[in-house]
Amino acid sequence: MNIAIVGSGLVGQAWAIVFARGGHHVKMWDGDPSAVAGAATLIKKQVADLQAAGLIDDPVGLIARISGCATLEDVLLGADYVQESLPERLEMKKEIFAKMDALAPSATILASSTSSIPASAFTEGLPGRARCLIAHPVNPPYLVPVVEICGAPWTDAQVVQRTWDVMEGVGQKPVKIHRELKGFVLNRLQGALLREAFRLVEQGYVDAEGLDVTVREGLGLRWSFMGPFETIDLNAPDGLADYARRFNDMYQSISTEQTSTEPWSEAVIEKLESQRRTVLPKDQLLARRLWRDRRLMALAAHKKSAE
Amino acid sequence: MNIAIVGSGLVGQAWAIVFARGGHHVKMWDGDPSAVAGAATLIKKQVADLQAAGLIDDPVGLIARISGCATLEDVLLGADYVQESLPERLEMKKEIFAKMDALAPSATILASSTSSIPASAFTEGLPGRARCLIAHPVNPPYLVPVVEICGAPWTDAQVVQRTWDVMEGVGQKPVKIHRELKGFVLNRLQGALLREAFRLVEQGYVDAEGLDVTVREGLGLRWSFMGPFETIDLNAPDGLADYARRFNDMYQSISTEQTSTEPWSEAVIEKLESQRRTVLPKDQLLARRLWRDRRLMALAAHKKSAE
Repeated sequence: MNIAIVGSGLVGQAWAIVFARGGHHVKMWDGDPSAVAGAATLIKKQVADLQAAGLIDDPVGLIARISGCATLEDVLLGADYVQESLPERLEMKKEIFAKMDALAPSATILASSTSSIPASAFTEGLPGRARCLIAHPVNPPYLVPVVEICGAPWTDAQVVQRTWDVMEGVGQKPVKIHRELKGFVLNRLQGALLREAFRLVEQGYVDAEGLDVTVREGLGLRWSFMGPFETIDLNAPDGLADYARRFNDMYQSISTEQTSTEPWSEAVIEKLESQRRTVLPKDQLLARRLWRDRRLMALAAHKKSAE
Repeated sequence: MNIAIVGSGLVGQAWAIVFARGGHHVKMWDGDPSAVAGAATLIKKQVADLQAAGLIDDPVGLIARISGCATLEDVLLGADYVQESLPERLEMKKEIFAKMDALAPSATILASSTSSIPASAFTEGLPGRARCLIAHPVNPPYLVPVVEICGAPWTDAQVVQRTWDVMEGVGQKPVKIHRELKGFVLNRLQGALLREAFRLVEQGYVDAEGLDVTVREGLGLRWSFMGPFETIDLNAPDGLADYARRFNDMYQSISTEQTSTEPWSEAVIEKLESQRRTVLPKDQLLARRLWRDRRLMALAAHKKSAE
């Protein structure tokens, strides 16, 4: 397939790697003409890291399948699928989708990487709105495979299915979201857990590091290879319904204390920031991010070998 | 140290392995005289699995450090630390803690494995209530290292600290919970996420398998080695406070739709059960539990090598 990447920042670069790793031809374009050349350098660095981690076989071939384009017209020419990866600004999405819909061949799928703006907010008035949808990655998608796929009410079901197939074809793990909703699924789940986490620290039950230990040495282990529903399905003799009926009262009772809809207070934000800075001083943030990326690579390699 | 395990069911057996693996002498007792012999057989099987996974070095020595006792008096004789692991029934906890407090040497720590009953509910009237507390494991603790440590208001701070040291000394990951609360930290976090997960499926946004994919191929990856606070600390240029301020509005807005305190309805329970059974038929639950345990072992070995 021919893939077009619109926007060559961190997200666009990572998508280029995903699609080229999957064997497709990838063209990149950016509104800033100097950005594409810079992106090519950064892509080579990331591909070298992936090779070192044993996660790709043919780095030379992968990189040869990625090329830059000077104009939006060029990048869309002959494209089967477009992955738009511009900043999270509604006006920018509106403008680029109007242009892409006008320029791209009529069968081309137009997907946005947005994590926060529903497709209906920037595609409603377009003649080709039925071919527009969200394909929301987690950064970096070449290590974190989930892709949330969510159309507007007018998105063609075949476009949703073809996008799902494209993602599965390159080794991503697509998820269909059947109706638009704020934050999609991943950030809503993260938000629900974070809200309780902030509350427990605010009220002095546990400190930030204790809470992180509870997740990374406990709750997060099963979730990293099963997810929450399979976890509870296997945690009662007779499966999920058995579990839900056994623990419904306990979780319902806890939920009555989990109803706050206040923004996080400056007090709890500063308390958490201060606790984090005792664990990790600010000047070590960058080094720790590199550590995180190495750990994500090692985890990806582990999961590949365990499956 | 001399460790006493009171209750030789699945939880007691797993604790015996943890303490014996850590080099301690472990004595087990159970109210059912035949149970201890059966437990010894099951422990040997689990230790063989751990050896096969490369997670223990000296299975023969480990098993030699575990012995059974015929009476409660015997198991408590000379014990430095007691891990009570009886069923989750308040009356049973009250009765056994009264007996243990009467029989155990005065310096012995009396810890309960309970996941749902606060220590104050079964230790208030005891002369030795200051030495009683909760040390709540996740099953099986030899693979999932977190231990939630939570005293009653009258628990001696030194007893909390010594329990923390005992757990750290045997390779567990203890977390101090500073005040009693229902469900401790782990199950409260799980409850917050499950509530949103049930809601998203009930309202038709996503199906059970899609939600599990979102976690196991996305959200759960970082959490399996960092926890939620470190995750967000590394996800904004300037750290946790920067992240919290950038996304406060988004998460606050989502939270207004996450306030249900209703029990899970039979309708959503049956919907989820039905979706799970298409992914995993009921007659494969047992085989899948064995798969899960192998994956947990492989993940534990991976984390050990990555640290």
